[in-house]
Amino acid sequence: MNRREKIAAMLREKGFDAVLLTGQENLQYATTFGHLEGLVIITKEGDGFCYTDSRYIEDATAVMSPLGYTVIQPESSYPTPSTPQEIIDRCGIKTLAFEDSVMPVSRFIDFQKALTAKMAPVGDAFDVLREVKDEGEIADIVAAQRIAESALEELLPRIKVGAREDELTAELEYLMKKKGSEAVSFPTILLSGPHTSMPHGKPGHRAIEKGDFVTIDFGAKKNGYGSDMTRTFAVGFASDEMKKIYNTVLDAQKAGIEALEVGKRGCDVHRAAADVIAAAGYGGFFRHGLGHSLGLNIHENPRASLSYEGTFKQGNVITMEPGIYIPGLGGVRIEDMIYLAPEGKRNLTQFPKELMIL
Amino acid sequence: MNRREKIAAMLREKGFDAVLLTGQENLQYATTFGHLEGLVIITKEGDGFCYTDSRYIEDATAVMSPLGYTVIQPESSYPTPSTPQEIIDRCGIKTLAFEDSVMPVSRFIDFQKALTAKMAPVGDAFDVLREVKDEGEIADIVAAQRIAESALEELLPRIKVGAREDELTAELEYLMKKKGSEAVSFPTILLSGPHTSMPHGKPGHRAIEKGDFVTIDFGAKKNGYGSDMTRTFAVGFASDEMKKIYNTVLDAQKAGIEALEVGKRGCDVHRAAADVIAAAGYGGFFRHGLGHSLGLNIHENPRASLSYEGTFKQGNVITMEPGIYIPGLGGVRIEDMIYLAPEGKRNLTQFPKELMIL
Repeated sequence: MNRREKIAAMLREKGFDAVLLTGQENLQYATTFGHLEGLVIITKEGDGFCYTDSRYIEDATAVMSPLGYTVIQPESSYPTPSTPQEIIDRCGIKTLAFEDSVMPVSRFIDFQKALTAKMAPVGDAFDVLREVKDEGEIADIVAAQRIAESALEELLPRIKVGAREDELTAELEYLMKKKGSEAVSFPTILLSGPHTSMPHGKPGHRAIEKGDFVTIDFGAKKNGYGSDMTRTFAVGFASDEMKKIYNTVLDAQKAGIEALEVGKRGCDVHRAAADVIAAAGYGGFFRHGLGHSLGLNIHENPRASLSYEGTFKQGNVITMEPGIYIPGLGGVRIEDMIYLAPEGKRNLTQFPKELMIL
Repeated sequence: MNRREKIAAMLREKGFDAVLLTGQENLQYATTFGHLEGLVIITKEGDGFCYTDSRYIEDATAVMSPLGYTVIQPESSYPTPSTPQEIIDRCGIKTLAFEDSVMPVSRFIDFQKALTAKMAPVGDAFDVLREVKDEGEIADIVAAQRIAESALEELLPRIKVGAREDELTAELEYLMKKKGSEAVSFPTILLSGPHTSMPHGKPGHRAIEKGDFVTIDFGAKKNGYGSDMTRTFAVGFASDEMKKIYNTVLDAQKAGIEALEVGKRGCDVHRAAADVIAAAGYGGFFRHGLGHSLGLNIHENPRASLSYEGTFKQGNVITMEPGIYIPGLGGVRIEDMIYLAPEGKRNLTQFPKELMIL
């Protein structure tokens, strides 16, 4: 089934006659076309219509027509809240689902006033559809990840005493962009020394010192799909305690990956990794979830975390990113992306993860 | 008046008891704190409360307490839809305004279910407040613009035959980041040769050829505030027609800046520039608005465009960016930011704009 057909099946199952899409992520999911200004309607019969303006009409037609969408420039030049009415009339749409977690209240009111169909919240139906990645989506995530890895490899010689967090961040993002990344998949976290004890700290102007940990959590984007990886390096030397922390995190990650299976609950996979950290005596220093799915958004369901009781499905891509963070001393996080492929588990991350002393 | 007091005055004028803020731009406007996860409530008496979680509490307190905000970590660790209720009870809030053009429908429903106050759409009240910039906002826009100009100056020697649009884009964004830009203020438009006839084209892999126009429309960000400038260069040589087009756009821009005054209507200022282009015989090739305000968003009101009948106020920052775009041949756009300061009109853009042949 293509994505339009998957959406139509969901609409039939939920009793909607059609869905109105205006949010960037769901538009891109449905049509593969990124950064559209306009709207898409998909009916429960699987018919797809896109309304957009002169800036996008040519490109959108080229991309969407082969996928079976009818691409239309409205008479008003730009789509307005009443634009979907002609499809509502033609297809006899009585219940029109909308993206209630994305559409702002005022826009919803404008649409509902202009349209005869009753608008109904689509809830998490698209999030659920998007949890399971198809081959095209995996190819985009892998392409983004290859860019990220190639950029990190090129950055390695510059990670040394005296280099600054903010400057290395700029260089890493530049390298990704030059290698074809559309954007960073989230703001790069590049921290050194004591800063590494903040799981989500912002890069500052600090210069790397001998004996520092340097943690880099970052990603590239390809066709709207993001990658996500973390590596932690030691600079100059690693003390015995640093080595112990590093290898505990690595062992925990391997235990998490080992535990990750179709049908397993997110909380149980989290525990598999957390137990390794606790057994090494660092239980109090791992305080975030083990991992999350990603795709058009950097954080999607399912999750591997203490509070997530849902299970993993074939087609999920899940990060595995345990960490130990000790205030004053520093922290380590190691993160790969694991794909629960039809043929079995596949690590989409190829960058080495044994401790490197730069 | 500080911004919290301005917001309180707006609430009293509109008959709201308080406002609930969750959108990034209005949160940053109200508190100067960027990238907060949490919520802010400001009452009509001018009291301000911020609820956030352990990740932000320390930084948020440091920034907001001196501004008079009470910063609180809720007992639930993270703010929930019922978090504002204690303020509603304490302050006797009956009507709670919310950001209807930003808040998604499902989030609105969650808040309204959890709270006793009646939630009422705030409409465009914050957009109107934010049209008029204070000194701190101007300083941020100017700081972003200085970064952008310095980066463009450093890029100039690399804009030559054989250089590619996408690679120059990566270099320009890298230079801005290294010079302290938080992010690009919008996706960089860097086009060459025939591509320059698309006002909002995306940089491709095209290599610059001799006799090309190269148009660069870009901006940096400082403390959440963006800059916006466009320059068009000729590479190798400029034909007589290219020179005529360039100088027509430059004359049109100067006419627009000349016409821009407090109290003038946006459509009239647009016409002042468009008339120059029409008089030179290029009337059909300038098809977008002359300019827009900017700040925390890259496009804000007021506008200088054919359809905008509102007038300019002291404190507005408006781009002036006429263009001529001839399919097959190429295009020229020149853009400065003009500040309608208390002491008079001030061009915030210092980069030269006479035709440069690189």
